[in-house]
Amino acid sequence: MSATRIEVWSLDGIPEITAGDDLGSLIAGAAEGLTDGDVVVVSSKIVSKAEGRIVAALDREDAITSETVRVVATRARPNGGVTRIVENRLGLVQAAAGVDASNVPDGYVLLLPENPDRSAGELRAALRERLGVTVGVVITDTLGRPWRTGQVDAAIGASGLRVVDDLRGTLDAGGRPLDVTLPAVADEIASAADLVKGKSASRPVAIVRGLAHLLDDAAPGARSLVRVGDEDMFRTGSDEAYAEGYRDGFQEGQSESARDEP
Amino acid sequence: MSATRIEVWSLDGIPEITAGDDLGSLIAGAAEGLTDGDVVVVSSKIVSKAEGRIVAALDREDAITSETVRVVATRARPNGGVTRIVENRLGLVQAAAGVDASNVPDGYVLLLPENPDRSAGELRAALRERLGVTVGVVITDTLGRPWRTGQVDAAIGASGLRVVDDLRGTLDAGGRPLDVTLPAVADEIASAADLVKGKSASRPVAIVRGLAHLLDDAAPGARSLVRVGDEDMFRTGSDEAYAEGYRDGFQEGQSESARDEP
Repeated sequence: MSATRIEVWSLDGIPEITAGDDLGSLIAGAAEGLTDGDVVVVSSKIVSKAEGRIVAALDREDAITSETVRVVATRARPNGGVTRIVENRLGLVQAAAGVDASNVPDGYVLLLPENPDRSAGELRAALRERLGVTVGVVITDTLGRPWRTGQVDAAIGASGLRVVDDLRGTLDAGGRPLDVTLPAVADEIASAADLVKGKSASRPVAIVRGLAHLLDDAAPGARSLVRVGDEDMFRTGSDEAYAEGYRDGFQEGQSESARDEP
Repeated sequence: MSATRIEVWSLDGIPEITAGDDLGSLIAGAAEGLTDGDVVVVSSKIVSKAEGRIVAALDREDAITSETVRVVATRARPNGGVTRIVENRLGLVQAAAGVDASNVPDGYVLLLPENPDRSAGELRAALRERLGVTVGVVITDTLGRPWRTGQVDAAIGASGLRVVDDLRGTLDAGGRPLDVTLPAVADEIASAADLVKGKSASRPVAIVRGLAHLLDDAAPGARSLVRVGDEDMFRTGSDEAYAEGYRDGFQEGQSESARDEP
């Protein structure tokens, strides 16, 4: 049921993408030998560009503000700016709301695809139509992590494959239930692909071969990887939550004192 | 400088590991064709077992308590238990402090290796000695993520390779600095390897071929991936930070009211 060998490679020959480009055709043309069960991993940057998500923005900070649904935490930067960790429209908690100013002309920023799961589905359909193959598609972005330095690529869109490999109920070799039961395989695929795509090289598409067992037409998209509601134990930064508690506690302390006065 | 293709496969023939086993010999015996520049990725579970980190524990919860350096967040579970997100001795923020009760006999738990970076270095030296090859070694564990469901494998020990590929100063195709500049490649390697190791199958060792450019004798270990001090904006859960703020604010509110009294 599980893979014991995968190959991961990035595609040559994906040109610079601009609004209106037919990404499905371009990938189909570059992905020689693409076969049933492969997973096609695409940097969200080129999906955004093809979908015309590049917008004029005098100020990147303004663009971040308008993409922000909820501020999670902020931190002053040594250079005088402010790092903002925010939840964006896609439910992703990211620095800068996923607004990207690299690889675009001055005065413009690149927003994330409007609906990366839908974009992944469209790419999958295009590859099936053009090449007659059934593949999974993962659309990636780069995410920081609270307790670890650096960033890793993760899945922000997916179609045609399980994003989580549900092992609940699986037993270990000794017949005991496995402690850890929900590998986020779409994120692991995104991370594996980043190792061959790189950031500066213009290699935004990778193929992962060997994971056909994860393909599933009916699987939910990458949006299902977003932890919501009560499950989110870190919905605000520690400083922000402390300050909110302090404000509420201070008020309550004052009014309790007032009630106690004779 | 960067890879465009990698292969990742898990090794056959790693037996059930017990305390005192010579992991270097066992991996050397199973890793036919291991070559300079390969990265050997090993689940911490078997490193722990070889190092005798299995301990009797009447109660897993007690074991978690004794491995805990700092409680980050807690949450009641529907079954009456409590999920504890804690920082352990290695600086890792994990559920259950990395204490593992699966794949061990009843009445025992498995602790993480005492010093996974050192363990990685020893394995690397053993593989050099036995096979004459220079490889990187990554020791992995499975980590949850605050804002995303499921878990991914990450590097808790490393030797002989860069754990972060520092791209600061790198320019994009248009000559602008890259926004995202510190890919945590050791974590991405751990995640890629998890796709072929699996959790229930007894395949705890994988080889990643194609990343020789990341090998570096002088690179720091995986401990350097732990975000420390002020950089950690999520050192406690939102509820915990709110409660602490509330307590402090309440006291201050009361005493300010007292000072205001005539």
